[in-house]
Amino acid sequence: MGIKVITISRQFGSGGHTIGQMVAEKLGINFYDSAIIDKTVEETGFSPEFIKEAGEYATSANSLLFSLSLASYAQGVGLPSPYDKIFAAQSKIVQEIADSGPCVIVGRCADYILEDRADCLHIFIHASDESRQKRVEENYTDIPGSPEARMREMDRRRRTYYKHYTGRSWGLSEHYHMSLDSGKLGLEACAEIIAGIYKQLM
Amino acid sequence: MGIKVITISRQFGSGGHTIGQMVAEKLGINFYDSAIIDKTVEETGFSPEFIKEAGEYATSANSLLFSLSLASYAQGVGLPSPYDKIFAAQSKIVQEIADSGPCVIVGRCADYILEDRADCLHIFIHASDESRQKRVEENYTDIPGSPEARMREMDRRRRTYYKHYTGRSWGLSEHYHMSLDSGKLGLEACAEIIAGIYKQLM
Repeated sequence: MGIKVITISRQFGSGGHTIGQMVAEKLGINFYDSAIIDKTVEETGFSPEFIKEAGEYATSANSLLFSLSLASYAQGVGLPSPYDKIFAAQSKIVQEIADSGPCVIVGRCADYILEDRADCLHIFIHASDESRQKRVEENYTDIPGSPEARMREMDRRRRTYYKHYTGRSWGLSEHYHMSLDSGKLGLEACAEIIAGIYKQLM
Repeated sequence: MGIKVITISRQFGSGGHTIGQMVAEKLGINFYDSAIIDKTVEETGFSPEFIKEAGEYATSANSLLFSLSLASYAQGVGLPSPYDKIFAAQSKIVQEIADSGPCVIVGRCADYILEDRADCLHIFIHASDESRQKRVEENYTDIPGSPEARMREMDRRRRTYYKHYTGRSWGLSEHYHMSLDSGKLGLEACAEIIAGIYKQLM
């Protein structure tokens, strides 16, 4: 079947980023995440801080601003917003990365950007609220606010961002070839399953 | 972790029923589907034809009737409809089956009925429209109307039925521990993945 690229979308706190790294390591292929941001910086000339803010990592306060900004631009005069320019640049880079060889790409709506390519395997990682909250408490000790509030806010933000740029609902099974509950199955088992099917279909 | 029961929900034409049989065979455990209908018949005293019609197998014309009937009962005087009585009886039987030992249960909203049990693994099988249409054409030669129309109608019906009895949206990743695209991954690979993770978590 010629599968070459794995995209991983994930709920905040589900361990999807870690699973992506484990899969890339098991398969001996490249892993992309923050590297995409850096490349985008070079393309667009925007500051690293603004690009980070325009993505999915904004704080709660700025997240509201982000949503309002998206809405006002969407209803506006049809000019691309700075967010749109960043998204367009990120899309171009995601496609270049996919062209460059076997790899794992986490986040950045890569599942949507690469949906027409037959050589991609699109994965969604999720987990129960309890499981994610536990993981957030253990792994994100430097974030403001309660882990639960942060989780809700990040979910809301990713959903808004994904809906705005893809027109699709986030987390719907049919948009992915495989959706896995990392809380129930375990991170290692998820990585094993993904690497295993990649080897079968490559 | 003590997993004992696998429930499989599936889009029409995705091969979820076949995958369920393959998993049960690989694991040497019981498989339940139409057997549930027969047991329900005994419990309720309804005719086998009516139970089949009240489930997910109605024809297009009767499906409209079903939706209208659900809606009118829902807005009515609060008495349980015949459909509600059948659903209640089916739910009871699904729980009895889950109590009876390791098994695979396909359909019947078993994922929802057994959602609070920690010993269940909930699976959703889906596939692209093209893949399902091909499968319907090959495997369902005795159904009326075009395969595409039948597929749409069955999807709509299962969605309506599931929404009515569970209050949830059908096919949302987070309601299942694993969602697999049988068209992309292949039926055998899906069955292998499910049986593999069952063995790890049993």
